[in-house]
Amino acid sequence: MDLDLIRTLAVPATTKIVLLSADGLGGFPHPDTGRSELETARLPHLDGLARRAACGLIRHVAPGVTPGSGPGHLGLFGYDPLRYQVGRGVLEALGIDFDLRAGDVAARGNFCTVDAGGRISDRRAGRIPTSRCVELVERLRRIRLPGVEVFVEPVKEHRFVLVLRGAADLSGRLSETDPQATGQPPLPVHALAPEAEATAARVNQFVREAAGLLADAAPANMVLLRGFDQLPALPRFPETFALRAAAIAAYPMYRGLARLVGMDVLKTGGTFTEEVQTLAAHWDAYDFFFLHYKDTDKAGEDGDFPGKVAALERLDAEIPGIEALRPDVLAVTGDHASPAVLKGHSWHPVPVLLLGRYAAADAVERFSERACTAGGLGTLASHHLMPLLMANALRFTKFGA
Amino acid sequence: MDLDLIRTLAVPATTKIVLLSADGLGGFPHPDTGRSELETARLPHLDGLARRAACGLIRHVAPGVTPGSGPGHLGLFGYDPLRYQVGRGVLEALGIDFDLRAGDVAARGNFCTVDAGGRISDRRAGRIPTSRCVELVERLRRIRLPGVEVFVEPVKEHRFVLVLRGAADLSGRLSETDPQATGQPPLPVHALAPEAEATAARVNQFVREAAGLLADAAPANMVLLRGFDQLPALPRFPETFALRAAAIAAYPMYRGLARLVGMDVLKTGGTFTEEVQTLAAHWDAYDFFFLHYKDTDKAGEDGDFPGKVAALERLDAEIPGIEALRPDVLAVTGDHASPAVLKGHSWHPVPVLLLGRYAAADAVERFSERACTAGGLGTLASHHLMPLLMANALRFTKFGA
Repeated sequence: MDLDLIRTLAVPATTKIVLLSADGLGGFPHPDTGRSELETARLPHLDGLARRAACGLIRHVAPGVTPGSGPGHLGLFGYDPLRYQVGRGVLEALGIDFDLRAGDVAARGNFCTVDAGGRISDRRAGRIPTSRCVELVERLRRIRLPGVEVFVEPVKEHRFVLVLRGAADLSGRLSETDPQATGQPPLPVHALAPEAEATAARVNQFVREAAGLLADAAPANMVLLRGFDQLPALPRFPETFALRAAAIAAYPMYRGLARLVGMDVLKTGGTFTEEVQTLAAHWDAYDFFFLHYKDTDKAGEDGDFPGKVAALERLDAEIPGIEALRPDVLAVTGDHASPAVLKGHSWHPVPVLLLGRYAAADAVERFSERACTAGGLGTLASHHLMPLLMANALRFTKFGA
Repeated sequence: MDLDLIRTLAVPATTKIVLLSADGLGGFPHPDTGRSELETARLPHLDGLARRAACGLIRHVAPGVTPGSGPGHLGLFGYDPLRYQVGRGVLEALGIDFDLRAGDVAARGNFCTVDAGGRISDRRAGRIPTSRCVELVERLRRIRLPGVEVFVEPVKEHRFVLVLRGAADLSGRLSETDPQATGQPPLPVHALAPEAEATAARVNQFVREAAGLLADAAPANMVLLRGFDQLPALPRFPETFALRAAAIAAYPMYRGLARLVGMDVLKTGGTFTEEVQTLAAHWDAYDFFFLHYKDTDKAGEDGDFPGKVAALERLDAEIPGIEALRPDVLAVTGDHASPAVLKGHSWHPVPVLLLGRYAAADAVERFSERACTAGGLGTLASHHLMPLLMANALRFTKFGA
């Protein structure tokens, strides 16, 4: 369903919706026990919700496709992630809380190692420590380019962000300098559209000057740039859904994604307990809360099965605090699976539960991948969840007479 | 998901995928027993796979639509069959192993009976024996048309294929001569686009000369032509999925479909046992094998319920030979249902099982239409199966950062 259609259906109401995204929620059975992280954890509160809720599975992007955090969350916000794509440079800038503005061109940068012949010998410069990255970024900040402001921001280890701002002729339609292989020199950037010629010239000048400034900085003696993009013009979430919408997330990437669609980003502490306190403190001021829990994904990506089980149990302990606010509609799901056995994101559908006065409870008694397979919601595309939440909050009018 | 996107996600790997298509796999309960062919057959090996696999149903084309073998298999190969359509003339040529080339125009032909007034009295000429078809095709081969080579090839009973080759101005945008009714004369062909005028003129000349050559050949004293088409320009399967892909099929139609998308077609014997031997012999040279089993469909189309049960049991006996090769991902499904009670293809979804290290087993314990309804894969569009196989073979990278 198109966001333009959603806009015509959304009507004012006083109901409140909480969308809790447990990052990387879905898992996979441990080979020794045959039980997934969710099936292993003791989750009295989440299981209790599941018994009273309509359950199902969320499929992100498309069958078989492993989503990154960007498309994973845009889907949960109601945006078809295949239609609304956000470049890596933009996501990287959002991930460090950089105040990216309309028209800015952002790129993901790597420090890398080149040999005497200029050929890449290590695409990640031996993963230099972040402190070294910060020093070298300081050097790159000396670079001046005609007609634009230049921002160079450290990220972590060998990674940084490059942002160009201020010229009317900026464009992100650029090829990448990273040949994605060693033994070759970095590629010159070229314009993928005529309007990007001036930006290409500026970026190539940046790379030349960076090479000079880093000549003595081996192993980080060169840069690679990729994922050039500008902020996409996404339909705004508050107007599309007629919701006063707030995001509560301790990690910058998720705050950035929420800001990208126009949600208010609330100041919060770094723990999930503090996030729930923030939720309670702002309860009256908003209709919709996007609440983000990160620990599940971190443990999954680390391949730490017991760690993910523990993260789920910590999440479970916070559920009563959310329920105490008596949201009209509460959904618990995730932006993708992160099974510990795969040590990263995966393509598997993610459990979802939807609790509300008009969400018919099904026979599901546990909040797990297998139990939710039999749920009343079936398997939903991620961008179909928001319309369901809206309907359950009695915030959609009838379609057609 | 678009094939262009799939191409950007596919990454090299050493895993091996086997896609076993049991033609017309799905069935329907026998009125006397209430059990379908799959539920009646003794299938210890397929049931064993189902217990360890993720199961579900494949929906081909669209709900309620009965697929032909062409769209049925194109879907399994990952091509949305509504987007990538192949004309009947082309499928007919592929079905007799005719070496159809780019630019050729192919049509399905019927011998038919016309009365003294030229009106059709039997659209299939009383289903003349194939030997008679071969004789009459010999007569039609005398026809010469300006600027093109003419091929007339017998198929079976009253059916033949007409192919025109060699002129730069050939086009398949032609109306049909078959009025799909008796009591009317065959229709003249007309061009459906300006570029098809010259081809239309040639085809009308062919029909006039055929009428003369067949005047004494009643009941096969006229021809009907339909399904004019040229080879479609399909994205190539090996490049799209970054797979070295081989097809093993005893029947020409399925070899032709595999060749159409760029798979290597392996020489094989006529039995399924020989097909599995071919699979083993070429195991190291390919990453992906399309393996086709025909007997299930033949029995279904004949309305032979016990015959289809026996065909399923013969297939089951070959499963250990496939498993012994230890594919990383093994999928068993079909290109459409062919219930014996319907004596033909049907629109019913087809069971699928997907076995692999990262395909979570669900609660399904039998490989049947009803049991797979509760499977973890849910109901999938046919062209979403290939992305799932790719994901399970760890051959897809993440979408978005």
